[in-house]
Amino acid sequence: MAGQVDFWFDFASSYSYLSALRIEPLAQARGVQVNWRPFLLGPVFTAMGWNDSPFNIYPAKGRYMWRDLERLCHYYALPLKRPSRFPRSGLRPARIICAHPRAPWLADFARAVFTAGFAEDRDIGAREVVASLLRDLGLDAEAVIAAGESTAAKEQLRRQTDEAVALDIFGAPTFMVDGEMFWGNDRLEHALAWAAGESKC
Amino acid sequence: MAGQVDFWFDFASSYSYLSALRIEPLAQARGVQVNWRPFLLGPVFTAMGWNDSPFNIYPAKGRYMWRDLERLCHYYALPLKRPSRFPRSGLRPARIICAHPRAPWLADFARAVFTAGFAEDRDIGAREVVASLLRDLGLDAEAVIAAGESTAAKEQLRRQTDEAVALDIFGAPTFMVDGEMFWGNDRLEHALAWAAGESKC
Repeated sequence: MAGQVDFWFDFASSYSYLSALRIEPLAQARGVQVNWRPFLLGPVFTAMGWNDSPFNIYPAKGRYMWRDLERLCHYYALPLKRPSRFPRSGLRPARIICAHPRAPWLADFARAVFTAGFAEDRDIGAREVVASLLRDLGLDAEAVIAAGESTAAKEQLRRQTDEAVALDIFGAPTFMVDGEMFWGNDRLEHALAWAAGESKC
Repeated sequence: MAGQVDFWFDFASSYSYLSALRIEPLAQARGVQVNWRPFLLGPVFTAMGWNDSPFNIYPAKGRYMWRDLERLCHYYALPLKRPSRFPRSGLRPARIICAHPRAPWLADFARAVFTAGFAEDRDIGAREVVASLLRDLGLDAEAVIAAGESTAAKEQLRRQTDEAVALDIFGAPTFMVDGEMFWGNDRLEHALAWAAGESKC
């Protein structure tokens, strides 16, 4: 039986960008299904006593993260343009995913949002930016955005964020496989190997 | 010309244990020289507003760390016995290394201390534990311990901790290669590849 991985991410998260762009071919090669689970880091961080990204609160960590991201993007051959503002709100695209959890364009949309945010320095929370990304995918941007603004979508994102906290998730990306947690882009391959039953580490 | 890596660690640090046990054969295979640089995470964390290990302050991070460490030890075939107290003070063995920076037994001693702490749940700060580890290495335990209690050794450890802060180090293990920082056991191979000039990531 093919394994599954729950991919918990926030569109604002820099290391989630790396995993979002990498996960699908790696998962397909192992026959693992990916469930894209957006959530909001904000409430998670608030519960930890942080009112901002830890990369802003702790400047040395922040300086390191941007240099590390630069090296990793070079290594993975991924584009990077350091966002002029960080973190940017990923609320709008996250709600859109919550409104369309089984859409065939879901992963394409998520990758387009992450690329806009981390390779093009665009404001991924802005209606017109998201509309442009949706049109590029050949979708009815107005209808998709409206669904993301529905009460149902808002409630679903709140439920998913509550679920993340209940799962003990404290950062992003986080990969959950049968109750086993793998935190960070560095653990993507480990999580997929676990899901595929290839390794127990 | 062979490269060098400065290996910054704290004997109290769980992920430093993994790197301390792994680094020498990996470095030797690439012709890279390892400089063992103990420092104290305590003052670094205090400067970040933490009065304890972040793994204690943030329980979800702590629970994850111990499970992650367990999986990684299995993967690396390293023994692990979760310390009944965490973190334990690494002050005494760190000062001993500062007093003997070029001793031929330095790496053996460091590995013995980490193994005592993370595979045998022994109190690595206790005089008698350290004396026993030194005797096992065939050393004059009393003389080595006395040198570690000297004012010179204490000042050297303070200087190294100040140097770590000046280098922007915010956690352990940290690998420095020609001013390039690599944080965490997950970056050990990257740091060594960088030192060997094999890769620029």
